[in-house]
Amino acid sequence: MSELFDPMLAAGPVRAAVDDTAWLQAMLDFEAALARAEADCGLLPAADAERIAGQCHASDFDPAELGAEATGIGNPAGPLVRALSARVDEQARRYVHFGATSQDVLDTATMLVSARALDVLLDELAGCGDALARLAERHAATVQSGRTLLQQAQPVTFGLTAACWLSAVCAAREQLSTARGRLAVQLGGATGTLASLGARGPDVVTALARHLELADPGLPWHTDRGRVGALASALGAVSAAVSKIVRDVTVLAQTEVAEVFEVDAGSGGSSAMPHKRNPVAAVAAAAASAQAPGLVSTLLGSAAHELQRAAGAWHAEWRPLGELLRSTGSAVTWLRTSLDRLRVDPTRMRANLDSAGGLPLAERVTTELVEVAGAGQDQERGQGPVGRLAAHDAVAACCRRAVTEDRELADVLAADELVGAYLSRQRLAELLDPAGYLGSAGVFVERALARHRDSASPASRDRRQDSQESGS
Amino acid sequence: MSELFDPMLAAGPVRAAVDDTAWLQAMLDFEAALARAEADCGLLPAADAERIAGQCHASDFDPAELGAEATGIGNPAGPLVRALSARVDEQARRYVHFGATSQDVLDTATMLVSARALDVLLDELAGCGDALARLAERHAATVQSGRTLLQQAQPVTFGLTAACWLSAVCAAREQLSTARGRLAVQLGGATGTLASLGARGPDVVTALARHLELADPGLPWHTDRGRVGALASALGAVSAAVSKIVRDVTVLAQTEVAEVFEVDAGSGGSSAMPHKRNPVAAVAAAAASAQAPGLVSTLLGSAAHELQRAAGAWHAEWRPLGELLRSTGSAVTWLRTSLDRLRVDPTRMRANLDSAGGLPLAERVTTELVEVAGAGQDQERGQGPVGRLAAHDAVAACCRRAVTEDRELADVLAADELVGAYLSRQRLAELLDPAGYLGSAGVFVERALARHRDSASPASRDRRQDSQESGS
Amino acid sequence: MSELFDPMLAAGPVRAAVDDTAWLQAMLDFEAALARAEADCGLLPAADAERIAGQCHASDFDPAELGAEATGIGNPAGPLVRALSARVDEQARRYVHFGATSQDVLDTATMLVSARALDVLLDELAGCGDALARLAERHAATVQSGRTLLQQAQPVTFGLTAACWLSAVCAAREQLSTARGRLAVQLGGATGTLASLGARGPDVVTALARHLELADPGLPWHTDRGRVGALASALGAVSAAVSKIVRDVTVLAQTEVAEVFEVDAGSGGSSAMPHKRNPVAAVAAAAASAQAPGLVSTLLGSAAHELQRAAGAWHAEWRPLGELLRSTGSAVTWLRTSLDRLRVDPTRMRANLDSAGGLPLAERVTTELVEVAGAGQDQERGQGPVGRLAAHDAVAACCRRAVTEDRELADVLAADELVGAYLSRQRLAELLDPAGYLGSAGVFVERALARHRDSASPASRDRRQDSQESGS
Amino acid sequence: MSELFDPMLAAGPVRAAVDDTAWLQAMLDFEAALARAEADCGLLPAADAERIAGQCHASDFDPAELGAEATGIGNPAGPLVRALSARVDEQARRYVHFGATSQDVLDTATMLVSARALDVLLDELAGCGDALARLAERHAATVQSGRTLLQQAQPVTFGLTAACWLSAVCAAREQLSTARGRLAVQLGGATGTLASLGARGPDVVTALARHLELADPGLPWHTDRGRVGALASALGAVSAAVSKIVRDVTVLAQTEVAEVFEVDAGSGGSSAMPHKRNPVAAVAAAAASAQAPGLVSTLLGSAAHELQRAAGAWHAEWRPLGELLRSTGSAVTWLRTSLDRLRVDPTRMRANLDSAGGLPLAERVTTELVEVAGAGQDQERGQGPVGRLAAHDAVAACCRRAVTEDRELADVLAADELVGAYLSRQRLAELLDPAGYLGSAGVFVERALARHRDSASPASRDRRQDSQESGS
Repeated sequence: MSELFDPMLAAGPVRAAVDDTAWLQAMLDFEAALARAEADCGLLPAADAERIAGQCHASDFDPAELGAEATGIGNPAGPLVRALSARVDEQARRYVHFGATSQDVLDTATMLVSARALDVLLDELAGCGDALARLAERHAATVQSGRTLLQQAQPVTFGLTAACWLSAVCAAREQLSTARGRLAVQLGGATGTLASLGARGPDVVTALARHLELADPGLPWHTDRGRVGALASALGAVSAAVSKIVRDVTVLAQTEVAEVFEVDAGSGGSSAMPHKRNPVAAVAAAAASAQAPGLVSTLLGSAAHELQRAAGAWHAEWRPLGELLRSTGSAVTWLRTSLDRLRVDPTRMRANLDSAGGLPLAERVTTELVEVAGAGQDQERGQGPVGRLAAHDAVAACCRRAVTEDRELADVLAADELVGAYLSRQRLAELLDPAGYLGSAGVFVERALARHRDSASPASRDRRQDSQESGS
Repeated sequence: MSELFDPMLAAGPVRAAVDDTAWLQAMLDFEAALARAEADCGLLPAADAERIAGQCHASDFDPAELGAEATGIGNPAGPLVRALSARVDEQARRYVHFGATSQDVLDTATMLVSARALDVLLDELAGCGDALARLAERHAATVQSGRTLLQQAQPVTFGLTAACWLSAVCAAREQLSTARGRLAVQLGGATGTLASLGARGPDVVTALARHLELADPGLPWHTDRGRVGALASALGAVSAAVSKIVRDVTVLAQTEVAEVFEVDAGSGGSSAMPHKRNPVAAVAAAAASAQAPGLVSTLLGSAAHELQRAAGAWHAEWRPLGELLRSTGSAVTWLRTSLDRLRVDPTRMRANLDSAGGLPLAERVTTELVEVAGAGQDQERGQGPVGRLAAHDAVAACCRRAVTEDRELADVLAADELVGAYLSRQRLAELLDPAGYLGSAGVFVERALARHRDSASPASRDRRQDSQESGS
Repeated sequence: MSELFDPMLAAGPVRAAVDDTAWLQAMLDFEAALARAEADCGLLPAADAERIAGQCHASDFDPAELGAEATGIGNPAGPLVRALSARVDEQARRYVHFGATSQDVLDTATMLVSARALDVLLDELAGCGDALARLAERHAATVQSGRTLLQQAQPVTFGLTAACWLSAVCAAREQLSTARGRLAVQLGGATGTLASLGARGPDVVTALARHLELADPGLPWHTDRGRVGALASALGAVSAAVSKIVRDVTVLAQTEVAEVFEVDAGSGGSSAMPHKRNPVAAVAAAAASAQAPGLVSTLLGSAAHELQRAAGAWHAEWRPLGELLRSTGSAVTWLRTSLDRLRVDPTRMRANLDSAGGLPLAERVTTELVEVAGAGQDQERGQGPVGRLAAHDAVAACCRRAVTEDRELADVLAADELVGAYLSRQRLAELLDPAGYLGSAGVFVERALARHRDSASPASRDRRQDSQESGS
Repeated sequence: MSELFDPMLAAGPVRAAVDDTAWLQAMLDFEAALARAEADCGLLPAADAERIAGQCHASDFDPAELGAEATGIGNPAGPLVRALSARVDEQARRYVHFGATSQDVLDTATMLVSARALDVLLDELAGCGDALARLAERHAATVQSGRTLLQQAQPVTFGLTAACWLSAVCAAREQLSTARGRLAVQLGGATGTLASLGARGPDVVTALARHLELADPGLPWHTDRGRVGALASALGAVSAAVSKIVRDVTVLAQTEVAEVFEVDAGSGGSSAMPHKRNPVAAVAAAAASAQAPGLVSTLLGSAAHELQRAAGAWHAEWRPLGELLRSTGSAVTWLRTSLDRLRVDPTRMRANLDSAGGLPLAERVTTELVEVAGAGQDQERGQGPVGRLAAHDAVAACCRRAVTEDRELADVLAADELVGAYLSRQRLAELLDPAGYLGSAGVFVERALARHRDSASPASRDRRQDSQESGS
């Protein structure tokens, strides 16, 4: 946490969802739910459980003090249990943390903190999806130059560009939602046998999961870090989806392209260059999303937990997971901000497209040439069908001539011996009109919108709810 | 590929599934299926499609030649299309690669190569699961010292140790199987609009997916690399699961622990130290699994594809994805080998446990002490209930005394004023018997076995089949 | 190695420097040099050493056979020693590999292979430096728009742009050259004591280093992987430097910017879009350079070698180091190719600059305004000195007006009450002329050229030579 | 920053060296030094520079407020300059931040913060070196089992084990010290030309470097991130060195090995298992050092800064560099703590060694057998020289027999037909004595100590000072 940098680097609501208070409360929620779960299973009186739960308020504990004491045992759970015990009356005190070990507290708290952060993040992502859907819908017919390797290519619509962004966000959101549903309690005791709970261990785990609204893992997972890895991967997927969109935004917002720009009263002004409209939100999102790959790699690389508790690899997870939640949260919030600020300039899009002089549509001429000439089997002229490669070469030569001689492509093509023999000047002009060569762009926009509507529907949210309840 | 290193670093069947021939065949399978899909949609005569498909045999093409030509356009798809066209008669030639772009070929081939590699990998993983299930079942009652931070702790069973490994392998296998089902064809044409296919684009994609037994993506995904990321993450999850198991094997195989060892006629001998039994397979698996985090990070970090085709980020995927498949394949094969070679020494497990003199069970004494003393409310002795912390402190002091004075822990406890007042020497001996303090170890072993049986069942495989067919 | 992909992904001379033959020869060079070093120290007859050395030709050994046998012991050194022994006569055979262990062979071979690859790489980098120096020199006065956050900003020269690239290449080359000088032999025997060499161990190491022209490490470094990490970091630095340059090339080569482009007869043609001039070499370099961060991270993450030889972390180094050498080599070769193909369009640079209408120079007006108005202390007009912020705000307002009203900035400024009061229309025109506001661009170009000349000089190469000889 | 987790995850003095106050002060130090440097060059009156410098106290600024305002422009430098300007009187105000851009402030502050953190870190590392030197010296003759792949192998001394650790720490410290010396000021103005400083730009940079005691970079490096990468790599090297040492500590501290353990009154107690002596400091150091590879990879992967300022990659550096400093600082402090707590048990080392029954020394018997039998050319017995492989096989067979029949190795060897023919029972006992087979262990310990003494000497510190002063 940094007051100086976090507004840029940890923007949005996830920041608070993973702060010290959130962690403390999650650990205390574990202790409260554990007592209640054990009471449900007859291991302790319900009244004692409530006495314990009644003391589980983060505001009553001092994170700095607990943090300082954490160095003794190697984690803050031990000091917290001591401090909680001290607040509970003697009668109930013996049941505090009963049967659990430090890792149970921390691992379950990790899942709780993550679950709460993910709920917030899923909402932010849904907001991004809504904004993207609006863009895709509104600009379904806005013609834009396609660009491959940053070179102008066949036309697309800006609606399709946005639909592809939307589709990626929907997919990432679904992956995150699935990971959310798999977040499970951890309870294993000292070495994963739940020995001190006798035969009631599995029942306590089930009850604990119910109290905390997390999944029941079936087996303790203290040394199987697959859940952490899957969570990390899902966050990495979200950051990856963001990174693509905002890279596109910064490219399209370049002075020389100028097809979109961010508009914000309070932002983007350069002190030295007052005229600039910096896409600050997209830049901040790009920076945030760039954090994920390294953090995911640290988490996946920490999976080799030795035997019943790792000598380092467990402690190694806390920082990168927290940072990954914060960075991905920041990336999504900045993306949402960028999309909210985004202005689209269809006129400029058309102008950029026209400046290419029809060259990106040359393929279309080639295709028609092959078709017409091939079908024609023109006996009179003594020509057989024109092969694809021959057609390609002829058209390519015309393109080069149009560029070097700075002439209209349609004119050059019409004047070409082979091309002109089969295609009229008028037909060539039609073929070179971008608006007439958009293929399935419209269908794809529709599909992306449908997927978004489906994933954002209340029914979908209920399905998510169900999948969480049914556990892993 | 290295003949010198690959037997170690790319062991097992995945290696061949991702070699040059496999890639060539996958690209050719795309071209064959594309022609057939277009014929299905009436875009070309079925006979022409078959003429094209009839030339799509990898053995007829020279990878070195295509590779050398690839530098011109930046990928081997262009040269392959030219070479294929040259083999097809003039009539059908015009339909070769019709409507597709290089990235369509490469991306779909990536999915095909991955699908085939994953099928092999899933089988290898199932083999690991079987071996682990045998270990978990056979050793369900084999008592072993639990170890946290590599210090002896409460007892477990080796069956539980193996069950936790098994559970992790099952989870990773399911994640990989899900990723397998999502592998989808890519077809978008130059910029993702499928412009040259007119209105038939989406139908061609569906037919293509059917021919190649891959999912139909709905939208072209040429610049949404979520599928590649999810595939990478699933492979990373497998490597992570392997890394934990083989780390444990090397730790348990240490000379001083010696609870398991690898036995192999042909391997593990040290030239300098003929007596050593090096766990070579576990070591090789550890090395292979260590490759994944960095490779996953490179793939997640390559997601920011600019607009309709990336200026570098797309080409950046090929190497790490290939290496990730090879390394993960090698990790799984070496794990399977290690498990096949594994010998377990229950006698040594018991001896290691006994050498701890009951100290790891001290918690149990604490628990019983709290229970007995608390319940007793012993008025006569003028004592109130013994709190958890007081009990803990008393037992801890006895433990320290037993160690420093080299005495039996039961004796020291029985002689302690507080402990001895509530617990007899005989009861203390019972409490310190590891075999009587295994909690839910047996239940957890059963659960892991049940999950494995379910995931390995024909029904499960059919479900996987279904999920693939129903697509993304 | 892949014949299909390597011409793209492992271009250039490094590929052959790290292939199976190169590795075999390096391992054999170790064995030959070891025998000679031991003969130098009187541990064996010189004639026997020569008999051993006489058999150390890679072409006599079969990498596939050795690779297959490597799985037994876990590395190819063991089988190679056996195969070499079999070729040496009985008299000398006893001295083959005397006192060494497998890791000594592999680690020293790693250093040798790296040294040879680095020598090639340093030459390629020098070639890049030469090409960059030519660009910097030729375009020292070619005015170009500066761009921050991809928005046009104050002018630079293309010479300065190239000089900054050159400076980064020089620095990376120096770091690589330093790493080259630190590459050292490894000889420790089974556990690093060189026990079987009696008291002559250190002398043998020194002689070995002399024979192999590598540094003498002082101590065995079998479990101190700092050298490997430093080598990896230096390669990462090279890839990082490349990644910046080629990103810039692809940005400047965009259709809408078009300030540079790659020209090559045989490359860059798009099959679908014949008019495109794809910057294929820059794209390939970008893809190659993107591999380094993940590979460096795998190598740094493999440093925790347990005790006298790691149970996995050592074997984990081979693949990523090989890949890092290949990828970095490819990145540098493709950069060199891109620079060789690069054409610069100064006219377009000027046109892009002019299209900004002087806005990027607004800061200059602000500065002069503060100076003039501040110095003036104009009592008559009743104004005190104009503060920086006030001046900034006034100029910024004019910039916005010029954009929204589509007027000449100089006109708007001259008409502004505050600005016009201090600066004439003519002075404003001068201030807005980019060629007059290039600051120290020329000096910086000169400095970069001087650094390049120095680093490329024979004297510099000699210094490098010296630093190698003086060891670690 | 987290009060709850930082005592574990960001232990030691580096934490405060990189907190918000440290960053604020570094940015203000830049502004003060810039004003003074410009005054030195006659660009403004010295008195005005002092008026500016007089306001540059971090305690006068509110990081939370500046952080909140940073979102407008995208970094906290802009708001800080405004806030500083507001504190400076009107006369001097116009010179605040004169000629600089936000990136100049942040980049130079990054170098200053890093320089201060590195000075602290270098001291901590020196402390580790001292502790390691004491261990190496004290235990130069303490025999310990060598272990390869975690299997007992030829003997070493614990002094040598510690000397190898020490050597790695010295090397990492030197790399860090070199990186410290290369930390340089950044001053380029809006696009790196220093246009508003006229011809005085380079002189101002030199003066700025002098005031801040950082290197003069020669050229602005705003888009050449080599310095950041080299700094990251050096920190990664330190973490890597730490990771190896503490992995060894946790392995040697295992219950079954028990050759070393951490002793601390306040730490390491397990709440559930009071007898355990958890190596908490080593575990914390392992966890901290595991952060570096991913963070280094993020920093190296952020090198592709577009043109004159990156659209994301620059902002992407701040978090990982801060975290890398904190994590590496924590790793080093925890290592130092672990070494301070470390107790060594030479008796247990000897016992572990003896338990191997001489097997690890089998190689020695092989070697002597080859020598004696070879030299003997024993004509009487009709035998030619015994080849290395034959000797190896014979000894290996004896080793297997000793293990399977649970007999003394010396007895088995003496009874062997081949071995017994050349070596007496007494000579075999001598050969199997570990203390007599330590090779150059003592020499290597001496060398490591000498290197440490040299690197820790005042002269060495002076040399470091010099290299800093002489700049890049």
